[in-house]
Amino acid sequence: MQTAASLDRMKSSFIREILAAASDPDMISLAGGLPDEKTFPIELLKPTIAQLHNDISLFQYGPTQGYAPLVKHLNQLYQLPEHHKLLVTTGSQQGLDLIARAYMNPGDGVAMEAPSYLGAMQVFDFVQASILPIAQLADGPDLEALERCFANDKPKLFYAVPDFHNPTGVCWSLATRQAVAKLCIEYDVTLLEDAPYRPLRFSGEALPMVSSFCPDQALVLRSFSKIASPGLRIGVVSGPAQWIEPLIKVKQGADLHSNVPAQAMLLGLLEHPEFEQHIAKVCDLYHGRYQVLLKALEQLEPFGCQAQPVAGGMFVWLTLPDCDSFAFAKYLIEQGVATVPSDVFYSAEKGVSALRLNFTNATPDMLQEAVSRLAQALATR
Amino acid sequence: MQTAASLDRMKSSFIREILAAASDPDMISLAGGLPDEKTFPIELLKPTIAQLHNDISLFQYGPTQGYAPLVKHLNQLYQLPEHHKLLVTTGSQQGLDLIARAYMNPGDGVAMEAPSYLGAMQVFDFVQASILPIAQLADGPDLEALERCFANDKPKLFYAVPDFHNPTGVCWSLATRQAVAKLCIEYDVTLLEDAPYRPLRFSGEALPMVSSFCPDQALVLRSFSKIASPGLRIGVVSGPAQWIEPLIKVKQGADLHSNVPAQAMLLGLLEHPEFEQHIAKVCDLYHGRYQVLLKALEQLEPFGCQAQPVAGGMFVWLTLPDCDSFAFAKYLIEQGVATVPSDVFYSAEKGVSALRLNFTNATPDMLQEAVSRLAQALATR
Repeated sequence: MQTAASLDRMKSSFIREILAAASDPDMISLAGGLPDEKTFPIELLKPTIAQLHNDISLFQYGPTQGYAPLVKHLNQLYQLPEHHKLLVTTGSQQGLDLIARAYMNPGDGVAMEAPSYLGAMQVFDFVQASILPIAQLADGPDLEALERCFANDKPKLFYAVPDFHNPTGVCWSLATRQAVAKLCIEYDVTLLEDAPYRPLRFSGEALPMVSSFCPDQALVLRSFSKIASPGLRIGVVSGPAQWIEPLIKVKQGADLHSNVPAQAMLLGLLEHPEFEQHIAKVCDLYHGRYQVLLKALEQLEPFGCQAQPVAGGMFVWLTLPDCDSFAFAKYLIEQGVATVPSDVFYSAEKGVSALRLNFTNATPDMLQEAVSRLAQALATR
Repeated sequence: MQTAASLDRMKSSFIREILAAASDPDMISLAGGLPDEKTFPIELLKPTIAQLHNDISLFQYGPTQGYAPLVKHLNQLYQLPEHHKLLVTTGSQQGLDLIARAYMNPGDGVAMEAPSYLGAMQVFDFVQASILPIAQLADGPDLEALERCFANDKPKLFYAVPDFHNPTGVCWSLATRQAVAKLCIEYDVTLLEDAPYRPLRFSGEALPMVSSFCPDQALVLRSFSKIASPGLRIGVVSGPAQWIEPLIKVKQGADLHSNVPAQAMLLGLLEHPEFEQHIAKVCDLYHGRYQVLLKALEQLEPFGCQAQPVAGGMFVWLTLPDCDSFAFAKYLIEQGVATVPSDVFYSAEKGVSALRLNFTNATPDMLQEAVSRLAQALATR
């Protein structure tokens, strides 16, 4: 049976391929975007898990919008205005997919930071949207290029990860946040603010979300995969109610609703008095690992490599002298270290040569050993 | 923001609307397709739930195909041949959606029994497939019409619910099963066998699945929502490996993977020595309710109504004298009984006038009272 034409456009995830290749036990993987499973708040989840069997209604069909007590809690937590609404999704990846399906016709434009999250490019490719890359600078997207794109190409959406961007780790400055919001309003482009890493700040002060400067011109994706558990597959989309309603309609056909016991488990966690403290502990752990990695990466400077400092998130972006980053990442696998090459984070355009290094799922010793192997590879290739 | 053109084709689910309207506590609802929550095997789930916190890997990202021990168990349970593969989905609804997205181009044909499952029509409408209705007879689809359709319209898929069809309750005869499989092979049409009600047989002997007569020409959807718990949202698609691979690719963009703790809970249930006995108890309970309903429906015969006997499943199809079934169902809601009118189960064509009555989620007393209200409504409208 022939697959649909739209499927031909969809790249298979290089990350998954590289993760599969990285099954060698001697391999050190900085490739995935995995949280350290030792951070999972199992102790805080225990009381809710132990009570699951007492609420039989959790095992019945539930509302498409989400488990009502969780929806209520999140509405308050995010202080959504009266005319806004939220939808609980099967991970924030589903939120992204639902938005693309509900809003993008073939050929509709979506502006994206370049480089950008591979999973978002896949989703927009699949609905045959036209991806419009905007170069990511040190403070966020190139504002002049963004305005030119908005004016000339009239995209429907601007997909962005303003806090600890995947893959570059960039955190947009306050001025950039305000400027982007202003442009979205001026050119009637919907901001799609994806914020999975936002709670993982380990230095400096949190900046307001970009959508807070254009709340009626934005959809927001939030994830609990980085601060609670990815296995639960619970994310949230929020925004103006009339933009959420079509997503609910599409979700109904996509999976009826998300797993209800998982939503109850998440609610128990969010209500747990120690959850805030748990997030702080996770940030501390990742901060320490980040410092070890950044320090170690200094030894690569003689090879023309440059690590970009970050204030949170899960990734460091290591720029390389101009090269075929894909070929270099493959060579690195042979040397026992898995990374993700910059090529996979660009759509059609040629990007910078770089590697994305994850620091949340390896111990300090492993991080140091990985960088030694990187140095070795740079010296010998 | 304007929604995608494909969304305009998607009917909102009348069932959900009617369920919302049916919130009056005096309302008796035979409208939904809900299992009785008292049947949920909570006792059998308890040991697994109690152990969840001991396996931290359940809370990490998992493989898109499914939780490996569950995949292994299901492979054995279904005795899949070497060249077949399965994919765990977020409910079998997601399996349906993934198949439509991976295989259907706009205008591609999908043959369906008429009437048919609303959730399947929604999914195929959304990908702008062309729905080709085949009249459902007492033994299954009209074989002559099916062959004409296969020969003339060359559909890509034939979507069917051969066991205790939703909404008619029809169970295909052995001869029809063999004939349909033969036609699928002859005309190279992929059978999409949706089997959520198959384990709910309460009389007679199980017949082989249709796909067992054309295994390399079929995709099979299985659900645990009717025999275990819908809230867990776990379903399975299986078929030739080369047809499952594209579904895994689409699922990766749709939600990365399904909830892992729920997959572990389901595995614990399937391995529980008392699970078979649990299913038998559920069937017994539903059998009793069905008998009460069927007996009560005899009193509607003077009004020209005819209930179709069934050997399992969740629904009885009550044909009415020719009328606007939608208007009649609305009138019934005013009389305190919610049902689903036949209109919503047909795509464009005019179908028979009928009501779908669910007998699994109401007590015998409620079923009898519902039929009294139906009789009253027929007498007074």
